[in-house]
Amino acid sequence: MSTKLIEKLQATIGSQKVLLGKDILERYHHIWHMDQPLNALAYLLPENTQEISDICKLCHEHDQKVMIYGGLTNLVGATETTGDEIIISMAKLNKIEEVDAQSRTMTVQAGVILENVQNAAKENELFFPLNFGAKGSAQMGGIISQNAGGLRVLRYGMTRNLILGLEVVLMDGTILNSMKKIIKDNSAYDLKQLFIGSEGTLGIVTKAVLKLQEEPKSRNSAFLAFNEFDKVVNFLKFIDQGLAGSLSGFELIYDITYQTLTSDPSPYKPPIPYGYKYYVLVESLGSDQEKDHAILNNLLEQAVLENLTLDAVMAHSESDLKWFWSIREDVHILKAKCDIDQHFDISAPISAFGDYVDAVMDKLNHLDGVKHAFPFGHLADGNIHFIIGKKNDSDELKNQINDIVYNPLTALGGSVSAEHGIGLHKKAYLKLCRTEAEISVMKMLKKSFDPKGLLNTGKVLDL
Amino acid sequence: MSTKLIEKLQATIGSQKVLLGKDILERYHHIWHMDQPLNALAYLLPENTQEISDICKLCHEHDQKVMIYGGLTNLVGATETTGDEIIISMAKLNKIEEVDAQSRTMTVQAGVILENVQNAAKENELFFPLNFGAKGSAQMGGIISQNAGGLRVLRYGMTRNLILGLEVVLMDGTILNSMKKIIKDNSAYDLKQLFIGSEGTLGIVTKAVLKLQEEPKSRNSAFLAFNEFDKVVNFLKFIDQGLAGSLSGFELIYDITYQTLTSDPSPYKPPIPYGYKYYVLVESLGSDQEKDHAILNNLLEQAVLENLTLDAVMAHSESDLKWFWSIREDVHILKAKCDIDQHFDISAPISAFGDYVDAVMDKLNHLDGVKHAFPFGHLADGNIHFIIGKKNDSDELKNQINDIVYNPLTALGGSVSAEHGIGLHKKAYLKLCRTEAEISVMKMLKKSFDPKGLLNTGKVLDL
Repeated sequence: MSTKLIEKLQATIGSQKVLLGKDILERYHHIWHMDQPLNALAYLLPENTQEISDICKLCHEHDQKVMIYGGLTNLVGATETTGDEIIISMAKLNKIEEVDAQSRTMTVQAGVILENVQNAAKENELFFPLNFGAKGSAQMGGIISQNAGGLRVLRYGMTRNLILGLEVVLMDGTILNSMKKIIKDNSAYDLKQLFIGSEGTLGIVTKAVLKLQEEPKSRNSAFLAFNEFDKVVNFLKFIDQGLAGSLSGFELIYDITYQTLTSDPSPYKPPIPYGYKYYVLVESLGSDQEKDHAILNNLLEQAVLENLTLDAVMAHSESDLKWFWSIREDVHILKAKCDIDQHFDISAPISAFGDYVDAVMDKLNHLDGVKHAFPFGHLADGNIHFIIGKKNDSDELKNQINDIVYNPLTALGGSVSAEHGIGLHKKAYLKLCRTEAEISVMKMLKKSFDPKGLLNTGKVLDL
Repeated sequence: MSTKLIEKLQATIGSQKVLLGKDILERYHHIWHMDQPLNALAYLLPENTQEISDICKLCHEHDQKVMIYGGLTNLVGATETTGDEIIISMAKLNKIEEVDAQSRTMTVQAGVILENVQNAAKENELFFPLNFGAKGSAQMGGIISQNAGGLRVLRYGMTRNLILGLEVVLMDGTILNSMKKIIKDNSAYDLKQLFIGSEGTLGIVTKAVLKLQEEPKSRNSAFLAFNEFDKVVNFLKFIDQGLAGSLSGFELIYDITYQTLTSDPSPYKPPIPYGYKYYVLVESLGSDQEKDHAILNNLLEQAVLENLTLDAVMAHSESDLKWFWSIREDVHILKAKCDIDQHFDISAPISAFGDYVDAVMDKLNHLDGVKHAFPFGHLADGNIHFIIGKKNDSDELKNQINDIVYNPLTALGGSVSAEHGIGLHKKAYLKLCRTEAEISVMKMLKKSFDPKGLLNTGKVLDL
């Protein structure tokens, strides 16, 4: 990096926003690794879109690599540096610019934290349905670049479905402003789709218009038990039809995972006894607590009577709801069992899911080096996570496990990443779920938007 | 077009699939203009993806323009020819390849007609929510290329939200296959988004995996009356919250439109008396006819009591439902009033809608040459249609009307096309709702995918 570039950056956005030397070492590349000093050339703290555009223009002129930092919660190494990058932090673009209760939209800068979006919606009796563990740190820019999923995709869709407008800065400094508060816009190409889910490799998300929902006034949940996968799928169809739009969650937990989440040292009791193969947690979001409780309860009674499920237990109070959902969400209980862990986020057609997981679990349980394997996930979205505990951290074992989980996906038409993205860690496996022609078009796009390869270099694709 | 190319095409896909000379004249460019012979160099009827790829490769080599024909229901001139094109018809790619009831997906070829998709879903107790007037002719390939909307976007989204997988042929013959039956796939760039809504200018949609829903078991509707726009929006929020996921339609009809649709020579009586400014038709799709009728009825009683609406009438039978919805859907009654018509499909933020339409109507009603102006549309999506009857077909009048409807949209952050696309007829107005930077990125994309400019040339963008 030339001294000249640094001087130009300081002159353009102000020296106090250009961190250098030991100020960089106080930063970090991931919230789980705050103890590791950041390895980068400079750390910039721009305050608005124009400053980001100016930075990009200068870096583009100087052939300088840049990397974008949001909440640093990514799970696939997307914010790991090689040391020759300038970091652009979105921390100061943290304003909620507008909540429009009539249009049911919120306009936010990229550095706004998800939980603040949820709260601002709630203050207006509205609802931003996106929800996942890292909501207290994850920023909207990263969430959009990642196309995050989470617990309510079944009803509200991925992040892609929740974005109406977007402002993006390209590597050459071009500002693409498409900040419309409209739900339908077929005026030529929908450019924002390119930037949603491309992990910041095509452009930098600086602002967004989010689509909000009316705030649900009721929340009901139940745990169910099954021994056959087909029965789980049939129950999904039954409850989805019965709840007619208010079903918002359908989470599958395998027996070994359920037992671990509900036995010592977990603080949670099992809502349903052990002895079944599959446990399912459903959620409805509705308009009237009492009425909606009765509707779900009636459907569950019918399901038990008609042998659609082997057992069903409803949450009858706020504390039951908290109990039930903590079992699903406290995955650190699983991680705590694993000294060395490896985790997965794959998707497959729902119809192929049961056999696939059985086959993977059989192979994992027979692999020397695997201590635990915990499957669970968003069945209604065809998305499962595995958390795997290992005896050692060798590359050989890691690759063996990757092969077991990933290799069957090609034939099934699945994906090595349902939600978490490709980043750095999954690049080698991309070819299992995307064709050569697809990858070559992706590279063509990357080269069109970032011909010098300066933006989040080495992530998602190798050129 | 060289004789050599024709010979090669005949040798590659078979002479019987290459229509020439007077066989072309029997074809047409739009279902409303079947009496006008088609002006084109050749008309091809390939039977599969490979044949389309072969055709594209040959035409690419010979610098030959091609245009794709589906159901020919487009409303913006997208299938108008200049005479120097070879037409590729999708008529023979008309197979539904699979319905997977467990994964709730349907795999279709591009030439499958929407109504056949709806019926095939129904036969499996599933539901494809996309619905609009031309469903008996419109083909899925065109629907996807157009990102069609329709009556149930509020709940189920545009076509974009209903597509899980896509197969596309590029102009150089490359087949991009991404036919996965999975709901979540964050494995690098989501390429299908580029082809959805780009009106066939970047690639040719040949197959798709559609996302299906459980079939609703109840349908309920009501007509309501309002005098203030804010009250309409507040009622939308009230009913959306109250129905908690089962609201599937919210259509706004202005007084003049409502009167025309329900008075002589219309066959329909008015469900609610005249004298109000706004009429709203709502629909819920649920699981139990009796229960859901009561839920909607109770909400409407509450709305009347709390002065959220001035009047409300529910449909109590199948024939009521048909009556209510015919009023909204029989737009030919409006067209019949207009000897010469001009129609619009614009979007704006919901909060800006009321004042915008009032101002446009005021200007239209004061413009000499305008006989009628009928506004109506999908308010919950911020999308309104105008059908305007004119005294003459002059370009001057047409442009005056375009200016009245389109010009305010820039300041409002609206769009000149909510659903219908840009095609040929709206190209001149694209710059009102997309920035120069956006249009320049669109052109860059077009050049990347179709460097010779051979695919649907002159549509959407001028290079």
